[in-house]
Amino acid sequence: MPTVVRNTPRTDLEVVDGLARAGVATVHEAQGRTGLLRSDIRPIFRPVRVAGNALTCEVAPGDNWSIHVAVEQARPGDFLVVTPTSPCEDGYLGDLLAESLRARGVRGVVIDAGVRDVASLTEMGFPVWSKAISAQGTVKETPGNVQTPITCAGALVWPGDVIVADDDGVVVVRREQAAAVLEGAQSREANETSKRKRLADGELGLDIYDMRGRLADKGLRYTDYADPR
Amino acid sequence: MPTVVRNTPRTDLEVVDGLARAGVATVHEAQGRTGLLRSDIRPIFRPVRVAGNALTCEVAPGDNWSIHVAVEQARPGDFLVVTPTSPCEDGYLGDLLAESLRARGVRGVVIDAGVRDVASLTEMGFPVWSKAISAQGTVKETPGNVQTPITCAGALVWPGDVIVADDDGVVVVRREQAAAVLEGAQSREANETSKRKRLADGELGLDIYDMRGRLADKGLRYTDYADPR
Amino acid sequence: MPTVVRNTPRTDLEVVDGLARAGVATVHEAQGRTGLLRSDIRPIFRPVRVAGNALTCEVAPGDNWSIHVAVEQARPGDFLVVTPTSPCEDGYLGDLLAESLRARGVRGVVIDAGVRDVASLTEMGFPVWSKAISAQGTVKETPGNVQTPITCAGALVWPGDVIVADDDGVVVVRREQAAAVLEGAQSREANETSKRKRLADGELGLDIYDMRGRLADKGLRYTDYADPR
Amino acid sequence: MPTVVRNTPRTDLEVVDGLARAGVATVHEAQGRTGLLRSDIRPIFRPVRVAGNALTCEVAPGDNWSIHVAVEQARPGDFLVVTPTSPCEDGYLGDLLAESLRARGVRGVVIDAGVRDVASLTEMGFPVWSKAISAQGTVKETPGNVQTPITCAGALVWPGDVIVADDDGVVVVRREQAAAVLEGAQSREANETSKRKRLADGELGLDIYDMRGRLADKGLRYTDYADPR
Amino acid sequence: MPTVVRNTPRTDLEVVDGLARAGVATVHEAQGRTGLLRSDIRPIFRPVRVAGNALTCEVAPGDNWSIHVAVEQARPGDFLVVTPTSPCEDGYLGDLLAESLRARGVRGVVIDAGVRDVASLTEMGFPVWSKAISAQGTVKETPGNVQTPITCAGALVWPGDVIVADDDGVVVVRREQAAAVLEGAQSREANETSKRKRLADGELGLDIYDMRGRLADKGLRYTDYADPR
Amino acid sequence: MPTVVRNTPRTDLEVVDGLARAGVATVHEAQGRTGLLRSDIRPIFRPVRVAGNALTCEVAPGDNWSIHVAVEQARPGDFLVVTPTSPCEDGYLGDLLAESLRARGVRGVVIDAGVRDVASLTEMGFPVWSKAISAQGTVKETPGNVQTPITCAGALVWPGDVIVADDDGVVVVRREQAAAVLEGAQSREANETSKRKRLADGELGLDIYDMRGRLADKGLRYTDYADPR
Repeated sequence: MPTVVRNTPRTDLEVVDGLARAGVATVHEAQGRTGLLRSDIRPIFRPVRVAGNALTCEVAPGDNWSIHVAVEQARPGDFLVVTPTSPCEDGYLGDLLAESLRARGVRGVVIDAGVRDVASLTEMGFPVWSKAISAQGTVKETPGNVQTPITCAGALVWPGDVIVADDDGVVVVRREQAAAVLEGAQSREANETSKRKRLADGELGLDIYDMRGRLADKGLRYTDYADPR
Repeated sequence: MPTVVRNTPRTDLEVVDGLARAGVATVHEAQGRTGLLRSDIRPIFRPVRVAGNALTCEVAPGDNWSIHVAVEQARPGDFLVVTPTSPCEDGYLGDLLAESLRARGVRGVVIDAGVRDVASLTEMGFPVWSKAISAQGTVKETPGNVQTPITCAGALVWPGDVIVADDDGVVVVRREQAAAVLEGAQSREANETSKRKRLADGELGLDIYDMRGRLADKGLRYTDYADPR
Repeated sequence: MPTVVRNTPRTDLEVVDGLARAGVATVHEAQGRTGLLRSDIRPIFRPVRVAGNALTCEVAPGDNWSIHVAVEQARPGDFLVVTPTSPCEDGYLGDLLAESLRARGVRGVVIDAGVRDVASLTEMGFPVWSKAISAQGTVKETPGNVQTPITCAGALVWPGDVIVADDDGVVVVRREQAAAVLEGAQSREANETSKRKRLADGELGLDIYDMRGRLADKGLRYTDYADPR
Repeated sequence: MPTVVRNTPRTDLEVVDGLARAGVATVHEAQGRTGLLRSDIRPIFRPVRVAGNALTCEVAPGDNWSIHVAVEQARPGDFLVVTPTSPCEDGYLGDLLAESLRARGVRGVVIDAGVRDVASLTEMGFPVWSKAISAQGTVKETPGNVQTPITCAGALVWPGDVIVADDDGVVVVRREQAAAVLEGAQSREANETSKRKRLADGELGLDIYDMRGRLADKGLRYTDYADPR
Repeated sequence: MPTVVRNTPRTDLEVVDGLARAGVATVHEAQGRTGLLRSDIRPIFRPVRVAGNALTCEVAPGDNWSIHVAVEQARPGDFLVVTPTSPCEDGYLGDLLAESLRARGVRGVVIDAGVRDVASLTEMGFPVWSKAISAQGTVKETPGNVQTPITCAGALVWPGDVIVADDDGVVVVRREQAAAVLEGAQSREANETSKRKRLADGELGLDIYDMRGRLADKGLRYTDYADPR
Repeated sequence: MPTVVRNTPRTDLEVVDGLARAGVATVHEAQGRTGLLRSDIRPIFRPVRVAGNALTCEVAPGDNWSIHVAVEQARPGDFLVVTPTSPCEDGYLGDLLAESLRARGVRGVVIDAGVRDVASLTEMGFPVWSKAISAQGTVKETPGNVQTPITCAGALVWPGDVIVADDDGVVVVRREQAAAVLEGAQSREANETSKRKRLADGELGLDIYDMRGRLADKGLRYTDYADPR
């Protein structure tokens, strides 16, 4: 039986916004290289960087009815996550639904399917990450679950998890771990800034990270082109 | 025997231009969700929106000879539709052919294969929708049909059908139905404008489209996170 | 045993820069339609056009250690070419490695795998051609060869070959043939400029290239729509 | 409005059976290398070879209702051709529908989507060519057209066209041309049998087809490994 | 930190074996069309049908170390489920690991990556469902989690869930729901047997399922070919 | 200019046959996990295992003329390796060419494109590894190189290199290294036989390969389900 779960908990928006600033690659590293969605999920415009609380939505193939149901559950700062129950590339949403989502405070959408009206969405500045761009319309015959745990593009997403999305793709952070991941991400960023300066000055990663000994242990050898042996 | 059909009928350019203004998604809906080409056919630059009369052209794999033949059949307002007789990603055309097509009044190209010189085409503002971008050149050994019915990217196209193409993809409209589809598209647009305003004001699709009763009939139930049963 | 070959020969940078000006499609034609990498290797931003001396690097799947080793071998004007020993889409490099490569004079990267931090790389203007954009990080456990011959995206690349890359993709030119290919490319360009002018004036390729007789020999026939036989 | 067209004409079964004996590759050659469906449409078991009259059926994504409608229109010797209105890999039919189709004299199915119960279908010896094998079930909410012209896997199919399918894939032959194509296929076969014997005896295609002169004209040259020039 | 969880609960093997008998399509229907893995996960030989308790294992790309760790946790009746932390097609296991798994009572493997030695595995009758067949070997540098919840081929899998796999693909059943799903599957089977008999006798699904009225309500209309209106 | 190189050296057939016995996975390991062709190159029937001397052949897309040229260069024990100059899935060869190749002593074919007449080839027992099965025929307009170095499915192949192919895929061994690789492969096999026996007896890889200490060093930890901390 299709179910809508109301009043699911969210992650604090201050933490969410901090994760947005860190960006997908850093957040993904900070939580041990986990949580990425498949890399064929791409943004419809670039550059873009946004984070929000997962508002989850399951849809039947070729049927976007649940998205209308999901809109009502949205709260400011949410990020709609849509997954079809079997693979589909149809254009599940366009500028009308985007207008409605924006009116409810939703910051973006990730969908393991297609999106349409992308010129209009780009003009609105409403970001969507999708597997396809397709004008193919959908029907309203089969409702699905809203605000239940789902897998989207290979990743497990719970309602209220944090979705961070930018030019590199999309990563999900568990609600319970969001604050800790943010802390880890921020210390990574500080560290990277200093490393980046040294690399820009011509220092080698081989030296900064002290790799030469370990490389030799692994058997790496150097030869000269003119005298290969 | 490869054949060129001369003097095929076209659709009136006023209707063609009206369909361009409506755009791919709306036109596709207005004709009952039919006529879309495969969604892996993508424009080389965005935003873009154009429509024209289909000038059809079959090519052998890795052989663009027929496109030269097709250029001569072009009339102002045409839209070149190219399909290889077996799957191929080669770059069948570049800036030289684009220059020639533009000189004959052709508005754009859709090809179920590759295109090259895309930087130059982008600079010219000459739009192409293709399956691939590839510098791979082609030969001139095997002529194919021009201005015969073809299937391109999964859709059937007759010479003189209307090709509408934008950021969302490509749709084909039968010549005989073009005026009726335009009418349907225009009334959809009027309707969408008013809906969009209501959604932007925060009204819900659930209410605008009166969906609640039908959703309940389909078994949708609501629970609360804190008290799931 | 993983090996780094030092002091491999390079192609003269004047030749390299000439090939960049000619662009991928023209260079590919000038060397007999050979040398293209697979067309799913795409630039992270457009427009872009650059050439350099191949600095080759083999990496284990999910492991970017060799890239750090390769940086030390870089010389101004080099173009890093990275290939994984088995298919992988991970984000092998981001803004830190790009900073380091740029500091050593490297002009760009082509990788038959993924790249990350693309917003930052775009801002830096550091071009990368890749199979994927993915935030997925990598480990440093298995070193690979640097400056040995490799195949990348279906093409054989020797250290010091010229890599030419633009919006159309990537082509490799053998070091020994680079000067001759440049000459051929330049004469093609001169020829194309004059052809383009004639085509823009409405002359037909059928006439410019004198194709009508050969088309008739191949059996091409013309009919009229109103009177098909 | 979804439509079922009754009493569409069929091709004579003697012609159909002759085309089955010729097989897909020969039939495709005999009609000028046209009519093939995309090569990702594969049989669920091999070896297999069958032909029948196209019984066409459009289905909504994830919805197999029309197939039930199509069964009623089936006549002995038919071949069900199913195409979804947007891309879908669901398992539209399994052993129950196969049983029903077989009871009505249908010889096989080609579907640009998925099929399930393939172990059972294999045991029954009921052949299906599909894009995917998937257990994913479908709903019955949206009827589609039956016995109207459709495109399936890139090919245009009219009701009553001949579908020929074997280990090599699927080809469609227009009803009006079926007898002529059969004749062409049979003379090709006779010719191939004699050629095959000569090739088996060690004669070269270069000589049988008298290719040496034309190859030389095209610039083919022979060198020796030990003395390359 | 990579973690191995010992002594995770399993599903009763009598229930597991009942689900195997029902098969993937029926089980998937019995739990509301959920739980399927992606359809590109295919068995290395057919026919095949098996079920077992999920023994979960995360591996680094190109690194099969965790599988050795997982073997020790295996119990009779287990089904190894392997997922790489980023997409990879390498051959993570072959006949040696299969021998070891079989010695511990493991019934089969599903892996969202590659497998090798498939001739030998086929001879052994040891079933594997995989995304690829690839001889590419792997390293042992990075351990991963064993017996933690994972997503494999788009589906969430908990240790001790039931994996059912056959010619149609793979489905996962939650441990807590396994007995109920079995019951549902068995009543579906009984129902299907009687339906199948009626269909084999030529009765139509349109009548058995009483579809004609609802089809008319949805607007389905019938016309005759000779008199289309 | 298309070139045929005559009298290229071959590898001793005793070495070739030894490599066939070792199989693809073992040979690939014995040469340091190198030389594999892309894993989408699959055999048309299974089980199968064969090796031969590479007879290389470049073809234009949709044009199989060079294969006829290559047949004349074949010697007993050769293995035809075909690569198109741009991506193509056409059926470049069928039973006629297979008959001709077999008459000249060719043992098999690997082609980074399509093959047809697979039922007939299977009946003949003539093995082909290909990217696609497609009935699509080809033309004879553009000759290509024969017996020059080529890249096929991502791997570099020199004439006279050894091609080893079985159910797992295809690997190429350099002629100069073939004897050494055979030796390595044979000692691997001996070692694997003894390991396999121990694993079948229930010994763990963790113990046989003495992995426990190194796993602990890498941070692997064990917890209990009932008491996770």
